[in-house]
Amino acid sequence: MNPHVATLRDTLTVDEAISAVRRMRDEYENIYYLYVVDADDALQGVVSMRGLLLAPRGSRVADIMRTNLIGLLAPTMDKEVVAHIMADTNFHTLPVVDSDNELLGIITHDDVLDIMREESTEDFQKLAGAGADEGLFDPLSTSIKQRTPWLLVNLITAFIASFVVGIFDSNIAVLPLLAVFMPIIAGIGGNTGAQTLAVTVRSLALGEVGIFDMRNVCMRETAKGLINGIFIGALGAAIAFITTARIDFSLIVWIAMLINMGLGGFMGSFIPFTLKRMNLDPASGSSIFTTGVTDSGGFFIFLGLGSIFLV
Amino acid sequence: MNPHVATLRDTLTVDEAISAVRRMRDEYENIYYLYVVDADDALQGVVSMRGLLLAPRGSRVADIMRTNLIGLLAPTMDKEVVAHIMADTNFHTLPVVDSDNELLGIITHDDVLDIMREESTEDFQKLAGAGADEGLFDPLSTSIKQRTPWLLVNLITAFIASFVVGIFDSNIAVLPLLAVFMPIIAGIGGNTGAQTLAVTVRSLALGEVGIFDMRNVCMRETAKGLINGIFIGALGAAIAFITTARIDFSLIVWIAMLINMGLGGFMGSFIPFTLKRMNLDPASGSSIFTTGVTDSGGFFIFLGLGSIFLV
Repeated sequence: MNPHVATLRDTLTVDEAISAVRRMRDEYENIYYLYVVDADDALQGVVSMRGLLLAPRGSRVADIMRTNLIGLLAPTMDKEVVAHIMADTNFHTLPVVDSDNELLGIITHDDVLDIMREESTEDFQKLAGAGADEGLFDPLSTSIKQRTPWLLVNLITAFIASFVVGIFDSNIAVLPLLAVFMPIIAGIGGNTGAQTLAVTVRSLALGEVGIFDMRNVCMRETAKGLINGIFIGALGAAIAFITTARIDFSLIVWIAMLINMGLGGFMGSFIPFTLKRMNLDPASGSSIFTTGVTDSGGFFIFLGLGSIFLV
Repeated sequence: MNPHVATLRDTLTVDEAISAVRRMRDEYENIYYLYVVDADDALQGVVSMRGLLLAPRGSRVADIMRTNLIGLLAPTMDKEVVAHIMADTNFHTLPVVDSDNELLGIITHDDVLDIMREESTEDFQKLAGAGADEGLFDPLSTSIKQRTPWLLVNLITAFIASFVVGIFDSNIAVLPLLAVFMPIIAGIGGNTGAQTLAVTVRSLALGEVGIFDMRNVCMRETAKGLINGIFIGALGAAIAFITTARIDFSLIVWIAMLINMGLGGFMGSFIPFTLKRMNLDPASGSSIFTTGVTDSGGFFIFLGLGSIFLV
């Protein structure tokens, strides 16, 4: 916010206002809008340079100002919300007022471009557990420090997945084919989750969906995962049948892929919505949590079914 | 681009210009800058409303116009480049000219906000292999059609990983502990790749790095992966030692984690730069390719070392 705003009193005549603007010329580099305030510094309206230029000479500022102030900002507003208000209105400057309507400053369009760049970089990088404002040429130590916490979280989720596999180790010894197909079940579920996650995190960031859409979105994304699972799973099962010539094994590959892709769709939407509901950033490390669940869950379903029906 | 631009001839006096602006008032809703053209419609400079308002009355447009036009745009420019020029300059309107300097139109700051929103959504969603402009409430069929091609690519990379595991299936039957630790090696390498990918794709999109930085960035990211691998790998190996009480096995877990994290850092930077070099979008499905390599590579290293030294 720039607290240094060119203001006019509402009682001035247009001629007085133009003289005032002339006096301000050295003080303010770029004036396009002049905000009009009353004796208590409360914001009353706005006059553009153009409005002043084209106004009938006898009129007063109060007569020519626009009073329906669109996109008023509060100092407590979230940066991202400000960016969306700016994008949705046509103005390149928006006034910031306190609860008494006193003008505190302005936000200009280039501030907002910077905010949008920053915010989408942050979301992008936090999703994968990199530093929010990390650049490629940051000192190695900075970069490593920012990534390490999420790698530690990932180590925990990976050990959980490994523990799940460990439950079935005696069956894997009997049927190592189970280990051979593990990466397929986990990979496809993780990727389904990543697709859902990308669209969900972005929709939440852009304000296209809110917390009340959670149930609806989670159901739809689970459905998308399952529908994709029917076809992709069938293809996976077909390849499994070609390579193993075992129909029972191929069927279990299909069912496990199908369920894990549904789980991916569910977790990819459930996790960002849940983080949002907890007032945390929906992007923060959510791909690590999603993959954690699709890995552990996928192994449990596949190795569990395999242990029951094949070994 | 808006081709409907308020222009002034450079030969006008300021008084004539103000009259011209008054006549334009109904035609152009929002004029802040008046672009100045010569008799051939070639762009000569720009005058702000404020400049016109504050100018000495006798002067001519040519005397008061600003001629150092910053951020001139060409009609062939990439949308993303336009957004960055706008963000880096202070202007809320930039002129678009052809090769003869003829004014074709203007780009306004709200166009650019829309471009930035779109572009970062596209990058975000394409990285995971979702549709570039997919929304959560698109019809299920649209959404599924956009995601299926990348799931098929993922199925191929997953089968390659599965094939790699298959090479070692007889050794897994002897030592199923290898299958139990597979998810740890693959998971941590994949996540290291995802972290690198996020920062690299974003830096490429923002123009912070170019194709000539490829070698440097790939080396640095590999180094970051390896350094993180020393510590995270040691921790993984320690947990492996606690759970298995086998020092040889734990050492191999460490080495495999270390190498796979280096591989993740390398691929996470190499893949987007390579896509860029091939004039493809650096975001497009690159997480699928990166995870594909860290899965297959990680399994090969870990199961290979395990087969040589443990079985």
